[in-house]
Amino acid sequence: MTGMKLRGVFPPIPTPFAGDLVEHAALAANVKQWMGTKLNGIVALGSNGEAPLLEDRESDALITTVRDAVPADRLLIVGTGRESTAGTIAATRRAAELGADMVLVRTPSFFKNVMTSDAFVRHYTAVADAAPVPVLLYNVTMYTGVNLLPDAVARLADHENIVGMKESGGDIAQIAECVSRTPDGFSVFAGSATTVFAALCVGAAGAVLALSAVLPDLCVELYELVQQARYEEARALQERLTPLARLLGSVHGVPGLKYALDQIGYRGGPVRGPLLPLSPEAGRQISQQLLALGVLTG
Amino acid sequence: MTGMKLRGVFPPIPTPFAGDLVEHAALAANVKQWMGTKLNGIVALGSNGEAPLLEDRESDALITTVRDAVPADRLLIVGTGRESTAGTIAATRRAAELGADMVLVRTPSFFKNVMTSDAFVRHYTAVADAAPVPVLLYNVTMYTGVNLLPDAVARLADHENIVGMKESGGDIAQIAECVSRTPDGFSVFAGSATTVFAALCVGAAGAVLALSAVLPDLCVELYELVQQARYEEARALQERLTPLARLLGSVHGVPGLKYALDQIGYRGGPVRGPLLPLSPEAGRQISQQLLALGVLTG
Amino acid sequence: MTGMKLRGVFPPIPTPFAGDLVEHAALAANVKQWMGTKLNGIVALGSNGEAPLLEDRESDALITTVRDAVPADRLLIVGTGRESTAGTIAATRRAAELGADMVLVRTPSFFKNVMTSDAFVRHYTAVADAAPVPVLLYNVTMYTGVNLLPDAVARLADHENIVGMKESGGDIAQIAECVSRTPDGFSVFAGSATTVFAALCVGAAGAVLALSAVLPDLCVELYELVQQARYEEARALQERLTPLARLLGSVHGVPGLKYALDQIGYRGGPVRGPLLPLSPEAGRQISQQLLALGVLTG
Amino acid sequence: MTGMKLRGVFPPIPTPFAGDLVEHAALAANVKQWMGTKLNGIVALGSNGEAPLLEDRESDALITTVRDAVPADRLLIVGTGRESTAGTIAATRRAAELGADMVLVRTPSFFKNVMTSDAFVRHYTAVADAAPVPVLLYNVTMYTGVNLLPDAVARLADHENIVGMKESGGDIAQIAECVSRTPDGFSVFAGSATTVFAALCVGAAGAVLALSAVLPDLCVELYELVQQARYEEARALQERLTPLARLLGSVHGVPGLKYALDQIGYRGGPVRGPLLPLSPEAGRQISQQLLALGVLTG
Repeated sequence: MTGMKLRGVFPPIPTPFAGDLVEHAALAANVKQWMGTKLNGIVALGSNGEAPLLEDRESDALITTVRDAVPADRLLIVGTGRESTAGTIAATRRAAELGADMVLVRTPSFFKNVMTSDAFVRHYTAVADAAPVPVLLYNVTMYTGVNLLPDAVARLADHENIVGMKESGGDIAQIAECVSRTPDGFSVFAGSATTVFAALCVGAAGAVLALSAVLPDLCVELYELVQQARYEEARALQERLTPLARLLGSVHGVPGLKYALDQIGYRGGPVRGPLLPLSPEAGRQISQQLLALGVLTG
Repeated sequence: MTGMKLRGVFPPIPTPFAGDLVEHAALAANVKQWMGTKLNGIVALGSNGEAPLLEDRESDALITTVRDAVPADRLLIVGTGRESTAGTIAATRRAAELGADMVLVRTPSFFKNVMTSDAFVRHYTAVADAAPVPVLLYNVTMYTGVNLLPDAVARLADHENIVGMKESGGDIAQIAECVSRTPDGFSVFAGSATTVFAALCVGAAGAVLALSAVLPDLCVELYELVQQARYEEARALQERLTPLARLLGSVHGVPGLKYALDQIGYRGGPVRGPLLPLSPEAGRQISQQLLALGVLTG
Repeated sequence: MTGMKLRGVFPPIPTPFAGDLVEHAALAANVKQWMGTKLNGIVALGSNGEAPLLEDRESDALITTVRDAVPADRLLIVGTGRESTAGTIAATRRAAELGADMVLVRTPSFFKNVMTSDAFVRHYTAVADAAPVPVLLYNVTMYTGVNLLPDAVARLADHENIVGMKESGGDIAQIAECVSRTPDGFSVFAGSATTVFAALCVGAAGAVLALSAVLPDLCVELYELVQQARYEEARALQERLTPLARLLGSVHGVPGLKYALDQIGYRGGPVRGPLLPLSPEAGRQISQQLLALGVLTG
Repeated sequence: MTGMKLRGVFPPIPTPFAGDLVEHAALAANVKQWMGTKLNGIVALGSNGEAPLLEDRESDALITTVRDAVPADRLLIVGTGRESTAGTIAATRRAAELGADMVLVRTPSFFKNVMTSDAFVRHYTAVADAAPVPVLLYNVTMYTGVNLLPDAVARLADHENIVGMKESGGDIAQIAECVSRTPDGFSVFAGSATTVFAALCVGAAGAVLALSAVLPDLCVELYELVQQARYEEARALQERLTPLARLLGSVHGVPGLKYALDQIGYRGGPVRGPLLPLSPEAGRQISQQLLALGVLTG
C-alpha cells in the first residue's frame, strides 16, 4: 500500500449470479475488463455487490476470485460492514487474509435510535484497531437510514488506520465539511454520481460510482477534467451523465446497474430476492440513455 | 398449533451475554420465570433479542435453549428475518426444526428505494410457501426505515401460512387498517407499548411488548381489561405504564430493557457492540419508573 | 361561556365562494343547516375554511355572518392564527368583538428551525394574555410542518385563558400525552377523522372534524357511543367512516370536502387558488363513499 | 430592465424595527451602505426580511423607502409571495407600482398535501401573467415544507415573464437539474451560503445570501473567483465562510443575522414575535466568527 495514492475512480462491482450461485467466471471476466480501463481499482462487496444478500462463505470465495483478477498496481477494496462490531471485525480479518488492500465498512444501522456519533466512534475504533489493512468509513444513508456526521468523521480521521471514507449522499455541504475537518491525507470519496462533479469541486479525492462500472472512461474523464481545472468541460460532462446516473442510482438501483452491464458486454444478470427483476419499461429507459451516451449502438 | 388461539401478550426477550458468549443458563432461567406468569408465550430473536448482532450458530443454539424452557401450552415464536429471501427461508427452516411454533419475519430493508409492496409480497410469499410453521409478518419501521403498508398486508393475509403480523409502529390508523383489511383469523399484534391500549381498542389481537418482559402482570392486566370492556381502567393503566414504556422503547431501547431486567430479578446484562452500555443517568430514569410502578423497592 | 362544557363534535366549516367573493347567503344557510343537527357548535376560519387564503376584511365579514346563524347555546369558535404574534392578537381581538365565543390559534410556522417549545410558549402566552375570549391551541403539523409538543402544551395549559387544544395529527401517543399532562378541565380535541375513535379512547374531549360537516349525525353518534362505553359499536362505526375520512383529509383535502357538501344539499363550491379544482376521478371516489354510507342516493 | 444582466450577489435584507414599527431611517441607511459595495442590488421582503410577520401597509412603506435608496443601476427585487394566488397578484402589482424591478415569489405552502407541480404551475402562471415586472420563482423548503421540483421549474421557465428562480436548498443535484432544464437566459440563484460555491460550480447565475448582508465583499469575491475559474481559491474562501454561513442560516436564522449586523455598523435590532431574541451564547458564537473573518475587531 505504501505510496499508493488513494485517489481516483472505483466501480462498486455487482455480483453476477447463475441460479442460486455466484458466477465466478463471469465475475473474473468482468473484473479483467474493468482493469483494462483507467479505473483505479475495484470495490467488491459494496451495496451494489448485493453484499447484504450474500452468505459469509460466498463473500469469501468472491474476494478470492476478484483478488486474482486485480493487478497489484490497482486497489482491491472490500466491503466488510456487518451489524455487530464483532462480526465486522471477523469479516475484515477474513477479507485482509484473502487479499483485500483495504476495507470499506458500512455503518451499522439496525438500532437507529441509539446509533449516535459516540456509538459510531466506538464501533469504528474497535474495527480499525483490529483491522490488518487500512479502513474506509462508509456512510450510505439512503440504504441505512442513519447518518455518519462530520463530527464523528473528524474524530475518526485521527485514527492511523482509518484513511478515508465513502460518502454516498448528495449533501454537498456535508461532503465539504468532511473534507475540511479531516487531514489532507484523509480521502473523501463521493458515492453519488449525480453530484460527483460538485463533490470533486469541494475537495473529494475521488469517487466510488456504480456509473463507472458502465462508463469507466467517461467517469475517469470527469475526474481528470476536474484535476486539470477544466471545470466548464467537467460540468458539461456531468450534465450528460446525470440522467443515467439517476436511473442506476436512486431510481432503479442494482437491478438497473446489472441490466446496463448486460447491454454493453459485461455480465450483469439477475438479482437476488427480495430485489425484483427490472421492469421492461425501466430497461427501455436505461437503454435509451446508453444509446444517447454512445456506448450502445441501437 | 391447532386450536391454539393466537392472542394475548408476548415478551420479545433479550439475549443475555457473558463476555462474547450467549449465557444459556441465564436465558433458560429467565424464560422459566416468564413462563410462571400469564404471558402467552415467548418471542425469541426479535429486535430486542439483538438478533441482527448474533451469528446463525448462536441463534440456533438459543432456540434450543428457549424451546426447552417453554412449555407445550405456550407459544414459542422465533424471529427469522434476514435481508435475502433465501437466507430468511433457511433460517425459518432451521428454527422450525429446532422447535419454533411460529416464525416472526422482519421486512428486508437494505435496498429501501426498491422495497415496494410488490417486493414484500413476493418475499413473504416465498418464505411462507417454504415455511414448515406459520408465519407472522413483522413491520418495525423505527429500525428498518421501510414500511409494510396495509395494502401489502391485505394481499399477504390471503396466504394460508401467514397467520398474523406484528406492527411495531404507533400509527393507529395503520393498525386499524391492517385489522379491517384482513380476515378475522388474522392476528394483528401491537409492538409499541406507549400505544398498546389504543391498538387493542381498534382491534389488535394482542401485543408483543418489551415492557411485558419487565411487567408481565401489568401488561397482561391491560390486555384483559380491554377484553372485559373495562376501558376506563385500561386507559388509566396505560397512562401509568407509558413513561417506562417510552424509556424502554424509543428512548433507550435494548440497553434500557436489559438494565431494567437486572433490577428486578431477571438476567439482563451487557449489550453487544455497536450498542453502547446504558448511561448512569438513563439507569436512574428507569429505576425511578420501576419504583413508581412498585416493582422495585428502593 | 360559564358552565358551557367544552366537549363534543364541531365541524370546521368551509368558506363558500361565488367568483372572487365569499358567498354569505350560502354560508348562513349552511350554518343553519348544521345547527339543526346535534353538532355542538361551529369552527369558522380553520384550515378547512381556507383561512390562509382570505383577507382580513373577508374574515371579519364572515365571522359576522356565522355569528348570526349560530344560536347562543352553541359555541362559535373562530380561527385567528397568524404568523406574527401581533397579527394573531389583532385578529383575536377582532374576532371576539365580532362575537366569537372562543378562538382557535394555529401555531405560527414559517421560521420552522427556531419554532421551539419556548417560542410557542411565549407566543401563546402573549395571545392568551391579550385575548378577550378563551383560547384553544391548534397543532396541525400536516399543514404547518411544525409540532406543538406535549411539553409546551403542558406548560400552556396552566394559563387560565387557555382552555384546550385541537390536535390534528394521528399520533395517538401524542394525544394521550397531551391528555395526561394537562388538567381535567383542559379539553383536547382530535382533528383527524381516521383516528378519532382511538383519540376518544385515550381521553380526547371531542373532535373537530371536516367529516362531521358531511356526516354530522354519524360523527356525533361515534362520539356518543364512546361516552356510553359502547366501544365495539364505536369501533365498527369508525371502520365504516374511515374511507371517506381519508378522502376528505390527507388525500383530497378542502376541494374534496366542498365537493362532498355539494352532493348532499349544502353549498360547497369552488376553492381559491393555489388550490386546484377536484379531479373528476376524485369526485367519483367521494361519491362512491357517500353512496356506501347512505347519505347520497344514486 | 432591458440589458441588465441578472447575475451576481444580492443580500436579502432584514427589516429593522423600533418597538412595534419599521425603522425607516435605519433601513435607508443600511441600504445605502450596502449599495456602497459591489453587491448587485437588494432583495427586500424575503424570508430574512421577516416578510411573513409584516402587514401589507408596512410592506408597501418599506418598498418605498428601499426604492429611494437603491440606485437605478442596481436591482431592487421584492418578495411578494402570499398563500393565495389573488393575494400574491395584488402584492405583486403594488410592489411594481412602488418601484420594484422584479418580484421574488415564494411558493404557497399551507395546503402541503395538494401542492403538486400542477398547482405550482397554475399559481405561478397566473402571477406571471398579471405581473407588471419580471418574476423570480422562490423555493425555500426549509421554511415552507414544500418543494418546487425541477419539473415544475422547467415548465415555468417557458413563461416570458418568469426570468429566474431562487433555490434556497442545499441539494446540488436539484440546483444542477434546474440549471440544465431551463434556457440559458433563465437565472438560477443559490440561497444557501454553505453550498454557494458548489452551486456556482454547477451553473448558478448568482446568489441571494443573508451572509452577503454581513460580508458583501467576501461574498462578491467568492462569486468573482468562480467567474474567473479560480476554483481552488474559491473553495478555500467557501471553507472560511462556511461556519458563519451556518450560524446565520439553519442554526440561528434571522435573529442571528440581525445580531451580526449590529456588530459591524449596520442596524439589525430586535426581531418580531414569534421569533425569540438571540441567546447570549449564540451571540458569542457569531461574534467569534466575525472576529475570525476580520470584520470585527475584538
